Amino acid sequence: MFVSIFPLRIEDTHALQVLNAVLYFALTTSMRTHTCGSLNAENVDQHVKLCGWVQNIRVLSDTLVFVQLRDSYGSMQLLAEQTKMPRFSEQKELLEQLNTDSLIEVAGTVVRRPEEMIKDRAQAGEIELLVDEVKVLNHAELLPFNPHIKSKLPGEETRLAHRYLDLRRPELQNNIRVRSRTSMAIRQFMDDNGFVDIETPMLFKSTPEGAREFLVPTRVGAGHCYALPQSPQQFKQMLMAAGFDRYYQIARCFRDEDLRADRQPEFTQVDVEMSFIKKEDIQGVMERMIQHVWKRIKNMEIPVPFPRMSFAEATSRYGSDKPDTRFGLEIVQVPEIALDQHTVAEVLVIPNGANVFSTKEMVPFVDLIRSSQSNNESRLTTVHKVNDNGASGIGKASLLSRYLAHSQDTQPKQSHLKKILNSVSANSGDLVFVSERSVYVTPANTTLGRIRTLAAKLLHERGQLDIPKDKYCFMWIEDFPLFTREVDDANGRLSATHHPFTAPVEKDLPLLYNSPEKVHGQHYDLVLNGVELGGGSIRVHDPAVQTYIFENILKLTPEIKASFDHLVTALGHGCPPHGGIALGLDRLVAILTDSPSLRDVIAFPKSANGRDLFMHSPSVATAAQLSEYGLKVLETSK
Amino acid sequence: MFVSIFPLRIEDTHALQVLNAVLYFALTTSMRTHTCGSLNAENVDQHVKLCGWVQNIRVLSDTLVFVQLRDSYGSMQLLAEQTKMPRFSEQKELLEQLNTDSLIEVAGTVVRRPEEMIKDRAQAGEIELLVDEVKVLNHAELLPFNPHIKSKLPGEETRLAHRYLDLRRPELQNNIRVRSRTSMAIRQFMDDNGFVDIETPMLFKSTPEGAREFLVPTRVGAGHCYALPQSPQQFKQMLMAAGFDRYYQIARCFRDEDLRADRQPEFTQVDVEMSFIKKEDIQGVMERMIQHVWKRIKNMEIPVPFPRMSFAEATSRYGSDKPDTRFGLEIVQVPEIALDQHTVAEVLVIPNGANVFSTKEMVPFVDLIRSSQSNNESRLTTVHKVNDNGASGIGKASLLSRYLAHSQDTQPKQSHLKKILNSVSANSGDLVFVSERSVYVTPANTTLGRIRTLAAKLLHERGQLDIPKDKYCFMWIEDFPLFTREVDDANGRLSATHHPFTAPVEKDLPLLYNSPEKVHGQHYDLVLNGVELGGGSIRVHDPAVQTYIFENILKLTPEIKASFDHLVTALGHGCPPHGGIALGLDRLVAILTDSPSLRDVIAFPKSANGRDLFMHSPSVATAAQLSEYGLKVLETSK
Repeated sequence: MFVSIFPLRIEDTHALQVLNAVLYFALTTSMRTHTCGSLNAENVDQHVKLCGWVQNIRVLSDTLVFVQLRDSYGSMQLLAEQTKMPRFSEQKELLEQLNTDSLIEVAGTVVRRPEEMIKDRAQAGEIELLVDEVKVLNHAELLPFNPHIKSKLPGEETRLAHRYLDLRRPELQNNIRVRSRTSMAIRQFMDDNGFVDIETPMLFKSTPEGAREFLVPTRVGAGHCYALPQSPQQFKQMLMAAGFDRYYQIARCFRDEDLRADRQPEFTQVDVEMSFIKKEDIQGVMERMIQHVWKRIKNMEIPVPFPRMSFAEATSRYGSDKPDTRFGLEIVQVPEIALDQHTVAEVLVIPNGANVFSTKEMVPFVDLIRSSQSNNESRLTTVHKVNDNGASGIGKASLLSRYLAHSQDTQPKQSHLKKILNSVSANSGDLVFVSERSVYVTPANTTLGRIRTLAAKLLHERGQLDIPKDKYCFMWIEDFPLFTREVDDANGRLSATHHPFTAPVEKDLPLLYNSPEKVHGQHYDLVLNGVELGGGSIRVHDPAVQTYIFENILKLTPEIKASFDHLVTALGHGCPPHGGIALGLDRLVAILTDSPSLRDVIAFPKSANGRDLFMHSPSVATAAQLSEYGLKVLETSK
Repeated sequence: MFVSIFPLRIEDTHALQVLNAVLYFALTTSMRTHTCGSLNAENVDQHVKLCGWVQNIRVLSDTLVFVQLRDSYGSMQLLAEQTKMPRFSEQKELLEQLNTDSLIEVAGTVVRRPEEMIKDRAQAGEIELLVDEVKVLNHAELLPFNPHIKSKLPGEETRLAHRYLDLRRPELQNNIRVRSRTSMAIRQFMDDNGFVDIETPMLFKSTPEGAREFLVPTRVGAGHCYALPQSPQQFKQMLMAAGFDRYYQIARCFRDEDLRADRQPEFTQVDVEMSFIKKEDIQGVMERMIQHVWKRIKNMEIPVPFPRMSFAEATSRYGSDKPDTRFGLEIVQVPEIALDQHTVAEVLVIPNGANVFSTKEMVPFVDLIRSSQSNNESRLTTVHKVNDNGASGIGKASLLSRYLAHSQDTQPKQSHLKKILNSVSANSGDLVFVSERSVYVTPANTTLGRIRTLAAKLLHERGQLDIPKDKYCFMWIEDFPLFTREVDDANGRLSATHHPFTAPVEKDLPLLYNSPEKVHGQHYDLVLNGVELGGGSIRVHDPAVQTYIFENILKLTPEIKASFDHLVTALGHGCPPHGGIALGLDRLVAILTDSPSLRDVIAFPKSANGRDLFMHSPSVATAAQLSEYGLKVLETSK
């Protein structure tokens, strides 16, 4: 028989069995014989000891007090009754003085509730504890807020400032415990499959171009710094050179993000690398790992292998390199209406959109269109309502006239529009978005892709589109261009689409030397329901190829190139073919727990602007502290 | 049947079974059907594919080439024979050009070696691979050193500069793999026992007194810094306040050590905390965890519970708070010969020491005595040879006259000496060390304790003392003084012996308010064979007690006290009684692998002075990088 675990939501029977065993034995300590969650009707008449938080106290009369006691595994009603309790009045007085969430240790006998008082048959519903002794372990002062009254929770800033209180909420208790079980499931899988868990340094090398890396000053010399790693990339490649052909690590990584971005400065990734493999090998391992995690955490079977889609197809059909394929709303390429050969013409039809969306709801769409035009992301994007007789509402459409008046002169010709509406068979009441963009840039997210996501969200909220929460559409996105043009120009400089260590697709290797912009990379992203869970690649293992990419394609400065010398040298000293991947653990757990924010799956997150509101960090270092490192504050910054 | 695993030394049959299963299935990739370590006589006549490093090539004749191929799991002899191999001459030429540790992929048939060639029956000893195709995966340049020729290894600096090569050594391969298995064994045990793995921040709070913490400048404001944590101490106590009553983490910690000290700036600890417990509860969990690890890694049964010894007893009997109890050589307290009531008199007899140690070998002992005198650690320490007629060699002893002439005037009176020799029953040829030290300081290591360790090492090397390597004497050291006098004076200021959050022993609580120097702390160290594996304590959970310790005993400045305000507040908001421990993982693995240096169990260690000789870190940050953080190099430091 399983006990019901509060506040945990256990979906996995195996975990429940383990926890159940644990509840009765391991969680027993010299201060308690049981946990609140481990008692049930089978314990009636037993004398037990419990410890926990006083959730509330009801003094029913001079002779009777009820206490709701809570621990991390459940709660239990305590009954202090004059006739059954030695030193009742003294202990009643003790209880009456306690604030919510004070800690007590109680001894008593498990009794069956009067039949009319039984509310539910689950776990402790049938029983209560007839107390004979109470000992106060810690008096609580009045709490700044009660984490157990959901309707009265203060704003996030206050909750972060008292994170230890907020973490008492059942939702956060569940999230942090699921995170632990997820990590363990991943580790178990990796360990069972011969992967070696290897810790790589956190005190990494500062690089001249490392704009987003935190520096760590040292006392080796003034200005001599380590840097905190954005990923263990270089170290894991070195482990392959060292002969650890299956490496994994659940690694902390750091990114000194723009403070406006709502990102955590530290995050955790599941980091994996293998030697003597091809793309399919590591994808296969990851698929089985995901399968294992979903089985353990959600008791769900995830079918493998995951579908593969090329970057070109994903961006064409969904306008995104991380498409949510739980629903349709696909973008259609209409090359015949492109204005010229430098242009890709695309159409997105939102069925019934013109009928469903109010004028107000259209504002964010128009904002998206405007910003894409001002950012030069698309040359022209317009929206059309299809009217009753099948012709376009263009010109007459109030939205167009209201918001797009400024782009009148660049509107597609009427003939184009007719072609479009014919080819995509738009119906009366549909919204039709038409976009034209340059062939020279390959954006991961097109304007129509963003519009698609926004429209889907709204349609879903209005009950017009089914996006099932418990449907998990995993997929691999592949065949990314190895290099990306930095500007919208056939002659623009190339930069690495992902990172400069990604290997070219084998058949494209000859193109590297004359048409590098046509080379595809052996990169793969793991995508789930519109979220990028992670990505990886087969790496360059030939030092000559790596040097050619650094020098002739990326045209690194000698200084930056020199900062990779140790890596190229290592490739030349017997480094096997290898590849790997990194998955974001925070995001993975957020999906598993259906949490809206990453802060809900991190025990002690930083606030949106990088502050720890509980510890009051960062704090100002004194001049003396800084001078230890040969540093001082710039006068202009004071 | 188990395969033999090279270069792993597997002592655990369960791990071997798992690995065995893995070798045949999971390690197969699209580039290989087997690993070198997975093939044995059962595979004869099978056509297989292998990948690996070319260990050496012997061209026996124009028609026959032998290649020793190595992967992470074993090695295999390859046989390229003209009559059995298509395109032989072409492939022979290919092989002849390969340097050691080049990577190849080979296909061939497993054949039985000629009976006279079979060297051993283990794994691949009976078989070889008759190759039909060789593909070069990566040409290796000439290596700076060959990690497989032990006798020709260069110095540690060169090996650290090419760490990826050094890591190919079987010893380091084994160490890093044992480390992974140790971590996993610990995690498995903690998970099975209901502990929740919770990640705490690495970007922690900089504190004014944090002399040994690394700073991490931020862009929040000039001089605003995070600090890297020396331990997750505060966070784990907050997790107890949050209601996670069983926490663990294998956590990276940081310490900005003096650059002269041979310590790693980052290290890993097994960090544990529990609520609603007493000391014995957490000790019991740790004992069973150690038992589990030794069983999994060394297939050894460790008896529990571990013996307990008080700090006072350990320092009295062994002159150390981390005594190696695998051997005797105990120190004897001789209070009757103490010069006055401010002095503790102690004697250590090294049986036969005067006969065994040469004059040269005595030098380090005399150095120890000298430095202890100049550091004021002991008021007087002397060494005596016992001569044939049982009287002391004092005055006549050449050592004394040679090295201790300067302390003639402070030598104990002859009557004292006679008392000593009588009371400790020293025999002819023994060395007798006599020490007198202040009662007001309680050093963790006394001069006699250091002499004992040194003497034991020398005696062991000379075969005069048995210190068995495979004997594991775990013990708990307890009852430390909660506070330590900072100077050798009855009125000296008190500081926390461990950290200011350690709870007093319950029965000593009343003493806190009038004789704090007599209070013992609920601290416990886990000691193994003279090494401190870790330590922990029951913490203060009462905010009033914590405040009293901060203000009235440690007399913290208001600024420093304020930096702990959030902690005291949290104690007052319903924090349960709790305690925990932290074990050093690096040291644990060094013991399990019998490694002389922590650098041998860390994949990418820093050199003794904190440098990464492979990555060339730390490196100089540019003025532009520093100015991003509102910092610049002090002029005087340039």
